[in-house]
Amino acid sequence: MRHDRQCNDPITRKRFFNAPSLLLAGALVIAAVPVIAQEGPRSAGSADPELIENLVAANRILAAYGVLDGFGHVSVRHNLDPDRFLISRSLAPELVTADDILEYDLNGDAVDLQGRAQYSERYIHAAIYKARPDVHAVVHNHSPSIIPFSVSDVKLRPVYHMAAFMKDGLPVFDVRAESGITDMLVSSPDRAAPLAVVLADSNAVLMRGHGIAVVGPTVLHAVARSVYTEINAARQLDAIRLGGEVTYLDPLEAQAMLDGGEHRGYTRPWELWKRNVMRDLR
Amino acid sequence: MRHDRQCNDPITRKRFFNAPSLLLAGALVIAAVPVIAQEGPRSAGSADPELIENLVAANRILAAYGVLDGFGHVSVRHNLDPDRFLISRSLAPELVTADDILEYDLNGDAVDLQGRAQYSERYIHAAIYKARPDVHAVVHNHSPSIIPFSVSDVKLRPVYHMAAFMKDGLPVFDVRAESGITDMLVSSPDRAAPLAVVLADSNAVLMRGHGIAVVGPTVLHAVARSVYTEINAARQLDAIRLGGEVTYLDPLEAQAMLDGGEHRGYTRPWELWKRNVMRDLR
Amino acid sequence: MRHDRQCNDPITRKRFFNAPSLLLAGALVIAAVPVIAQEGPRSAGSADPELIENLVAANRILAAYGVLDGFGHVSVRHNLDPDRFLISRSLAPELVTADDILEYDLNGDAVDLQGRAQYSERYIHAAIYKARPDVHAVVHNHSPSIIPFSVSDVKLRPVYHMAAFMKDGLPVFDVRAESGITDMLVSSPDRAAPLAVVLADSNAVLMRGHGIAVVGPTVLHAVARSVYTEINAARQLDAIRLGGEVTYLDPLEAQAMLDGGEHRGYTRPWELWKRNVMRDLR
Amino acid sequence: MRHDRQCNDPITRKRFFNAPSLLLAGALVIAAVPVIAQEGPRSAGSADPELIENLVAANRILAAYGVLDGFGHVSVRHNLDPDRFLISRSLAPELVTADDILEYDLNGDAVDLQGRAQYSERYIHAAIYKARPDVHAVVHNHSPSIIPFSVSDVKLRPVYHMAAFMKDGLPVFDVRAESGITDMLVSSPDRAAPLAVVLADSNAVLMRGHGIAVVGPTVLHAVARSVYTEINAARQLDAIRLGGEVTYLDPLEAQAMLDGGEHRGYTRPWELWKRNVMRDLR
Repeated sequence: MRHDRQCNDPITRKRFFNAPSLLLAGALVIAAVPVIAQEGPRSAGSADPELIENLVAANRILAAYGVLDGFGHVSVRHNLDPDRFLISRSLAPELVTADDILEYDLNGDAVDLQGRAQYSERYIHAAIYKARPDVHAVVHNHSPSIIPFSVSDVKLRPVYHMAAFMKDGLPVFDVRAESGITDMLVSSPDRAAPLAVVLADSNAVLMRGHGIAVVGPTVLHAVARSVYTEINAARQLDAIRLGGEVTYLDPLEAQAMLDGGEHRGYTRPWELWKRNVMRDLR
Repeated sequence: MRHDRQCNDPITRKRFFNAPSLLLAGALVIAAVPVIAQEGPRSAGSADPELIENLVAANRILAAYGVLDGFGHVSVRHNLDPDRFLISRSLAPELVTADDILEYDLNGDAVDLQGRAQYSERYIHAAIYKARPDVHAVVHNHSPSIIPFSVSDVKLRPVYHMAAFMKDGLPVFDVRAESGITDMLVSSPDRAAPLAVVLADSNAVLMRGHGIAVVGPTVLHAVARSVYTEINAARQLDAIRLGGEVTYLDPLEAQAMLDGGEHRGYTRPWELWKRNVMRDLR
Repeated sequence: MRHDRQCNDPITRKRFFNAPSLLLAGALVIAAVPVIAQEGPRSAGSADPELIENLVAANRILAAYGVLDGFGHVSVRHNLDPDRFLISRSLAPELVTADDILEYDLNGDAVDLQGRAQYSERYIHAAIYKARPDVHAVVHNHSPSIIPFSVSDVKLRPVYHMAAFMKDGLPVFDVRAESGITDMLVSSPDRAAPLAVVLADSNAVLMRGHGIAVVGPTVLHAVARSVYTEINAARQLDAIRLGGEVTYLDPLEAQAMLDGGEHRGYTRPWELWKRNVMRDLR
Repeated sequence: MRHDRQCNDPITRKRFFNAPSLLLAGALVIAAVPVIAQEGPRSAGSADPELIENLVAANRILAAYGVLDGFGHVSVRHNLDPDRFLISRSLAPELVTADDILEYDLNGDAVDLQGRAQYSERYIHAAIYKARPDVHAVVHNHSPSIIPFSVSDVKLRPVYHMAAFMKDGLPVFDVRAESGITDMLVSSPDRAAPLAVVLADSNAVLMRGHGIAVVGPTVLHAVARSVYTEINAARQLDAIRLGGEVTYLDPLEAQAMLDGGEHRGYTRPWELWKRNVMRDLR
């Protein structure tokens, strides 16, 4: 991608400092200034600026394409320490810049909160990173078309190849099963651990009356899967409403698609999406 | 419109040229110039400029996010006198500036109309402020997905936690019940009083074949509840159409959410929404 | 509206000549240059520039708000002669300027075609102006949500007060009834006359497998009714899909709304819509 | 169209070099620099710059109007050799410029790949050009509303005249019928040939659990048919959901529409669409 190469090129980088680029500026500050933990866990050190940049882009992409609104969040596992992850302070995703990214351990404790408000549901991310070493990015969202499936006994299943990552359909986590009557927020390790259990080895888990958690081996995967989970849900809804027989993707077809390299790592749409939200930023 | 008055005020105009804030400029005029009631009720005095600014933002947010179109309106209770409320003159909400805000008493009479056209349905607001001392903001809208529920015997209920404020579902007011055949407009105290009765202690009341009135302890609440009522209605519609069993939010879960601080006062999405509509203004 | 005032102000008007305003420039050209009919019917003379400006705005509003796409058209009756009407040359409505407006008689013959391509379905407009002296504006569109009602035996009826102009529901014209197998286009007086018969004294008539013709006493009415017919159709669809009992607007309520002054001539949304499309133009 | 004429006009062309027009610049490079095939098949020579420009516009139109997202592609047959076709390198359609266009033979082999990544499903295009000499443009897309019909036994049929090109409904290709369990991608000549067989002499063929391939005698036709297939699918879905009897376009009516000149070659919407996406580019 263009911007990644520019980061390694001092001349191009200078162009970014001249241009009003909060995004890159913030990423470089994080890269340059060692974070000093005060009361929280020890920092893993400065994360890869490209990882930060992609995390910021992910926030904005998910907002721009309607997966996130004022709520929801996206995180990445730290590139230097699998026991740390990065996520914004409490902020609408559309507004996130590199400066807003905080580092957490897998209990959901911030390395250095700097007095900022934090997402009460960061435990969703912490619990999944703890349970699933293969996962390097997590999105929690309330995207429109998945909500109906979270409260229905009709299973969310792939109707087309873009949603092959759903394989034979998504599991549904009901916070009530383990935690009883709550405010529905997964705002503690106790509420989050059972979510990771229901997720098991799936690529996403619906949350009853709430939303979804989507995971991936990279932030590109987690973002694109969030987008295509939303699209597939809307399409499945329509297919059911047509009133005829619906043919879902065969789990073997889904597996063949995943084995073949799931949409080549989503680099093609990512290039488009990132370009569009970066353009808006700069 | 705003340009007329600003053009007559050299000081405000200067600030306008220096800082491109039409919005604030208008708010400060209201704050600085004492309103002189002529034939209407006595004014409560200059309202808090931030309240005015948020009311203007509310108009534009509700238009920008599709809750209001050329019709509908939003009001706030006056910060200096619970017997007064503030609402725009008759104008499409997307166009409202601080200069358009008028002061009314709880009978729906303007303190000083300044020869302007007014909303014929301001009585919705007046009646609710009279009946509900806890309410400090009211939105009346015709947002797309709530209309079907206003004419159906299927109840609008929360399918997810973002709509916890609906508790066990919204009541429906039918103007015909008390007022017989009308033009459907709640354009008099007589038609508005029964609406407040049906609203009772709910956070919103559907209006049959017309729209909805949504209330809140702050304008942030009334706006965000309007947005999430629309979203929840669309999602409930889809959940029903899926054809399976639908699990609604348990009223105890809804209550726990409200007790826990309803989405922390919606400051997170408000920051985003206000930023976006302010940016368009300036 | 702002621009009306500017037209009466020579200084402001000059600004328009300097600014790249095809719209106003075109309107003034039409006002200034006598049209010379060559082979067509006699011209009624220069139309009111404000009428032309509103017709141009109508084209752009209907495109901007999704009622028209590359197809469909809107016309107004000439202010100087009830036997003439004004409509664009064959052009996507979003692109129409005053320069594109042509004058026709009620047989659908152009006064002066100036070698331009014309809408093959202008006969819809001609036949309606001939049959309905009270009509001063006509919109022909294929807006999304009305198409299903044009091919269903479920009647399009008002679910809320904004669509009171539909009274007890819209009639459906089937070109096949009088003209047999055709290419579905109402492209001759013979095909158009039966459409006007089915319209009768309604405010709109659905066209089976094709679209709709919407009429009004002013272009504001015809535009706003087109917008709210689309919105009402979508809402009725949703109300039916909810699966419960649907309560339609009582025809007496609809009549009371119309008697009370149908949404005060739609000046409130028109001000907003026109401002938005004019802003894009200039 | 304006820009076509400008290409033949040296003065206007100069304006394009001064203006930041990647699009035209790219088109002219292709026109001026002879392509040297290295290991692939022989080039047919420089394609008509207007054809290239329309192909670029097609990519952007289909993205702008929601038919394509990050995936899908559009191609045209070469104007100098019916055994060659032109399509972008692997790239999100919204980003395509003339510089990205590659030349292929009807086996799906690139004349000169220049080290670029290519669409794995270019074989869809190759197989159709081989089987259908009348076809000069092909679109492969996953547009939202056609997906449900690709997995349902309910047939996609024209509900209105804009979709007359569907005649009595679209065939559905299931890759599994000939190729068994696959990753669902039509990424080889073997998988593509049966698709062309199912397409037969239709104007489009649905692909089960995947998308659609739409063809036309010109790129205008293929683009407009893609747009109106999407729109018709959404409308048919709604018509069915209304619950009443649905009247489809009579195949004789559809044929009469096609015989009469299918929407006059779609020049009217094309002019609008191309203007809009070109404006964004320059």
